[in-house]
Amino acid sequence: MENRPLIMVVNDDGYNAPGIAALTKAMSEIGEVVVVAPKGAMSGMGHAITLNDTLRVDEVSVEGASKAYALSGTPVDCVKFGTKKVLKSKPDILVSGINHGSNASVNVIYSGTMSAALEGALEGIPSIGFSLCDHSIDADFTASAHFAKILTQKVLKDGLPNGTCLNVNIPKLDLDMIKGTKVARQCIAYWDEEFDERKDPMGKSYYWLTGKFMTNDMGEDTDEWALKNGYVSIVPVQSDFTNHGLLKNLEDNGYTKA
Amino acid sequence: MENRPLIMVVNDDGYNAPGIAALTKAMSEIGEVVVVAPKGAMSGMGHAITLNDTLRVDEVSVEGASKAYALSGTPVDCVKFGTKKVLKSKPDILVSGINHGSNASVNVIYSGTMSAALEGALEGIPSIGFSLCDHSIDADFTASAHFAKILTQKVLKDGLPNGTCLNVNIPKLDLDMIKGTKVARQCIAYWDEEFDERKDPMGKSYYWLTGKFMTNDMGEDTDEWALKNGYVSIVPVQSDFTNHGLLKNLEDNGYTKA
Repeated sequence: MENRPLIMVVNDDGYNAPGIAALTKAMSEIGEVVVVAPKGAMSGMGHAITLNDTLRVDEVSVEGASKAYALSGTPVDCVKFGTKKVLKSKPDILVSGINHGSNASVNVIYSGTMSAALEGALEGIPSIGFSLCDHSIDADFTASAHFAKILTQKVLKDGLPNGTCLNVNIPKLDLDMIKGTKVARQCIAYWDEEFDERKDPMGKSYYWLTGKFMTNDMGEDTDEWALKNGYVSIVPVQSDFTNHGLLKNLEDNGYTKA
Repeated sequence: MENRPLIMVVNDDGYNAPGIAALTKAMSEIGEVVVVAPKGAMSGMGHAITLNDTLRVDEVSVEGASKAYALSGTPVDCVKFGTKKVLKSKPDILVSGINHGSNASVNVIYSGTMSAALEGALEGIPSIGFSLCDHSIDADFTASAHFAKILTQKVLKDGLPNGTCLNVNIPKLDLDMIKGTKVARQCIAYWDEEFDERKDPMGKSYYWLTGKFMTNDMGEDTDEWALKNGYVSIVPVQSDFTNHGLLKNLEDNGYTKA
């Protein structure tokens, strides 16, 4: 009998998003798939967890999955709940996505998709987040699913160091137009926000958060460069946020004091 | 006329938490203080931002602040809204906290307090997050306020590299029992979660997330070690999450493919 790996699929767009359907289908060709995903859209949730509220779970149906659950919590809650209450053991691999929209560069910090992958890595599970650089609901996930399958098989074979996951972004191109994959570093950038102010029917102000992506990082070793040049970008993302290069400098500048 | 620095104060426990009151009071002895904080408790919100909902703001009163605002969003929303809509320019420094509870080690990833500081760093503002290792609502913030004042003045003078903030944790000790400050790295750890299952009056299950802090990292250069040994820990936290040490290894293992 074939020994099929156990694959946990999560996302941040909700259990019924087209992206997770594409990922679940691709993963079902590799192993047994269990989906644990938020009930609704959880974009931009970062590494949020639910501390001040309760969690509810419903069994749902996702094509290609042997079991699927919709959780009232965040993407990171889904990883925790999935490993502890649904699987009761670690899956062989955790895949997150396929996100509708880029998680390259600084987006990794805000992304529920990537926080779920990082949570998997923290728990010692080889984990990958996949994102397609196309926000539209009817995005074509063909190329993304193709690379998700290849890279998942590779990580299942090679493993990843504890605490590090992969941030994989796929350019909005047809499969035969994609030049290949590139290991890259996170492009240094930030979002320059605007707040779109409107008035409600009572005349009171409310705001929508919008923003512009800003970067001066023109390096050809970044994920943004890879994507702009037709490559799938692969960034190893770590859960140790220490700026190790600055430790000595701070000590020398008197921040350590007896 | 004295040139007083402009200090933005945020937190994740809400504008009316004792910790932000202590921090605002301490900062008012250094400069002009503007508070932009969540309306309610936002612990564990990580780097979440509000994309699928609108934001509302109310002017409130916080002792020691020249202006104070309560925002319906997350801690990171507060930083964005504060710099763009309230101040309309960058403050000289951003301080976040004082958090009720430790944000040392892996807690930095889940912490709204620290995500707010990291957001400040991303926007090029020298930023520090302060947390007291005491969850109780009536915690004594005397020692924390003391170190917040010293370290804020130091960072105002020295600056910090773009994209890096400081994660400062204060042990639950009287000021005269604290041995000093230590620059440290983030202790490698994770939370081993449990889900406390209960039944609602209709007989349907719901869950509360709980967990145990787990670490095998016994290094004497970590924030956990510093705190356990009576020191204030100072970890430089960066917004580049790339595992740079792994880039070459992944390339050598065939992850870059033309």
